[in-house]
Amino acid sequence: MSSPKYGVVAVGNALVDVIAHTTDDFIAAQHESNGMEKGAMTLIDEARAMELYSKMGPGVETSGGSAANTMAGFASFGGTGGFIGKIAQDQLGEIFQHDIRAQGLEFTTQPLVIGAATGRCMILITPDAQRTMNTFLGASVELTAEDVDQGLIASAQVTYLEGYLFDREQAKQAFIRAAEYAHEAGHRVALTLSDPFCVDRHRSDFINLVQNHIDILFANEDEIKSLFMQENLDDAVSAIGEHVEIAAITSGPNGAVIIKDGQTTKITAQPVDKVVDTTGAGDQFAAGFLYGFTEGKSMAECGKLGALAAAEVISHIGPRPEIELAVLLKDAA
Amino acid sequence: MSSPKYGVVAVGNALVDVIAHTTDDFIAAQHESNGMEKGAMTLIDEARAMELYSKMGPGVETSGGSAANTMAGFASFGGTGGFIGKIAQDQLGEIFQHDIRAQGLEFTTQPLVIGAATGRCMILITPDAQRTMNTFLGASVELTAEDVDQGLIASAQVTYLEGYLFDREQAKQAFIRAAEYAHEAGHRVALTLSDPFCVDRHRSDFINLVQNHIDILFANEDEIKSLFMQENLDDAVSAIGEHVEIAAITSGPNGAVIIKDGQTTKITAQPVDKVVDTTGAGDQFAAGFLYGFTEGKSMAECGKLGALAAAEVISHIGPRPEIELAVLLKDAA
Repeated sequence: MSSPKYGVVAVGNALVDVIAHTTDDFIAAQHESNGMEKGAMTLIDEARAMELYSKMGPGVETSGGSAANTMAGFASFGGTGGFIGKIAQDQLGEIFQHDIRAQGLEFTTQPLVIGAATGRCMILITPDAQRTMNTFLGASVELTAEDVDQGLIASAQVTYLEGYLFDREQAKQAFIRAAEYAHEAGHRVALTLSDPFCVDRHRSDFINLVQNHIDILFANEDEIKSLFMQENLDDAVSAIGEHVEIAAITSGPNGAVIIKDGQTTKITAQPVDKVVDTTGAGDQFAAGFLYGFTEGKSMAECGKLGALAAAEVISHIGPRPEIELAVLLKDAA
Repeated sequence: MSSPKYGVVAVGNALVDVIAHTTDDFIAAQHESNGMEKGAMTLIDEARAMELYSKMGPGVETSGGSAANTMAGFASFGGTGGFIGKIAQDQLGEIFQHDIRAQGLEFTTQPLVIGAATGRCMILITPDAQRTMNTFLGASVELTAEDVDQGLIASAQVTYLEGYLFDREQAKQAFIRAAEYAHEAGHRVALTLSDPFCVDRHRSDFINLVQNHIDILFANEDEIKSLFMQENLDDAVSAIGEHVEIAAITSGPNGAVIIKDGQTTKITAQPVDKVVDTTGAGDQFAAGFLYGFTEGKSMAECGKLGALAAAEVISHIGPRPEIELAVLLKDAA
């Protein structure tokens, strides 16, 4: 088999983030009135998005979406690849498309012509650097199996799937299709669980997907516990080890644990001067890990690259690296 | 005369900034091919904006526009006021409108229904923290004298005009109209010259405006030298002192000089740990100065507030304060 053209192709939500600072009181009031969950991602419709936006402070806009953020980090390390996700034909869609292509990534998904606007995620950052997300998925939920570009998938060592997409039935079909294309080409499929509430909403489908289609699983502690409905983390971790080739379980400032073929590798979090905004920490851990993986590194090295990228992204506002990760990596060596 | 409801109402371009890092080589190549001037603002049309955007790296979007940035800083100190400027009915226009209103500022200008999109300014930041701006004015040039809200202007102690608007004839008329409304109400009119090239394009109109309608003038050294075509800064400064009540001349890391009634006050620049992006330094100096002025402070105190705001904005990416300036002011006291 010839070596694949690309490192990673991701399938995920195409979103633009609107980031604003807020207070704990604001989150508490929104929890009361609209069920906003601090630290979690809440799905909202367009009317609610407009209402929330009108109450938020001034924002900064930047391309987001979990898997797209991972690809931005992966490309920043020097990785090559592409992204599959649905934008609309509007200004926010143009911004998303520009930013993903400006990273050198291939992006060929046809935009939605009639229907919802490009999706956006309103991210509220509290003084403790936690991010609370409110997502209007917009056009991104219109991704179907037909949008999964077989040639692009087949060209990548790893196809990376974003769990958040699971909130729509046709996106589940797109996942299965992408996984089939990747495996037909003899390549690997990775999944990030994205969010404990998302796992909770689609537990049996996620378990089916993991058991039948996933080689590499990314999750944090809450997500993996939710998947197996286990209170005990160790039990959940050993359960996942039976289903996938590699599982990378992150736990914020406590670092991460990687399980491969029954072997456990502990990863220490990289210290940062000041945690400014935790948005994208998990996405960037995956970026670093996948860069190491596609470069044939050991699990310990993959984890270290993940920790490096996560440390960069939590030290500033915004979900994508501000400093070229390839430069950071060189400096660290 | 009853005391005015607001501190400052500004008339300026309604723009969304697209900020990206770049190299000196990129600027040099664009200088060769398209006349891009490092450190300056170049006006571009929509076709050129699209071409440049396609060549730029990934960006971050944030509301901008010189006078609108000043108002954001002014409001961040606790000042009250409004903004007059033209957006289109599109997503970038919604972002601009949201951000200005989220600061507690009044914004009533009717958006452009048919015609150009909301204007945007592509800001390229080089490793030396300099910003090079490329502005597609879009809808913002469609501001006319009819858009100048007499009630809003009359309600403010100071009407603040952005020199960049002078690139269109009908905007010049809007300026004269705004100045007349302000003076009829017994209030003051301030102007920022914005850019030496802009001054160069419209020198005689600027001189007429300054002589006949302006009480407070903001400029940097290059702009004031350009206005009077003086090589010598001292000569230019003494020339301006004859035309306006107050002139505030900034000179980057060397601070500023304020001339009022023939008296000169020197202002020291506030040191910063690291200059990250000089975008908005002049705008924020004006914000701090105007906040002090509307609070009845001395020239020395007004200048110090200007230096405080400028120091905040150059220590991060983006043209508007990230930290509440009222809090910064409290901490400094």
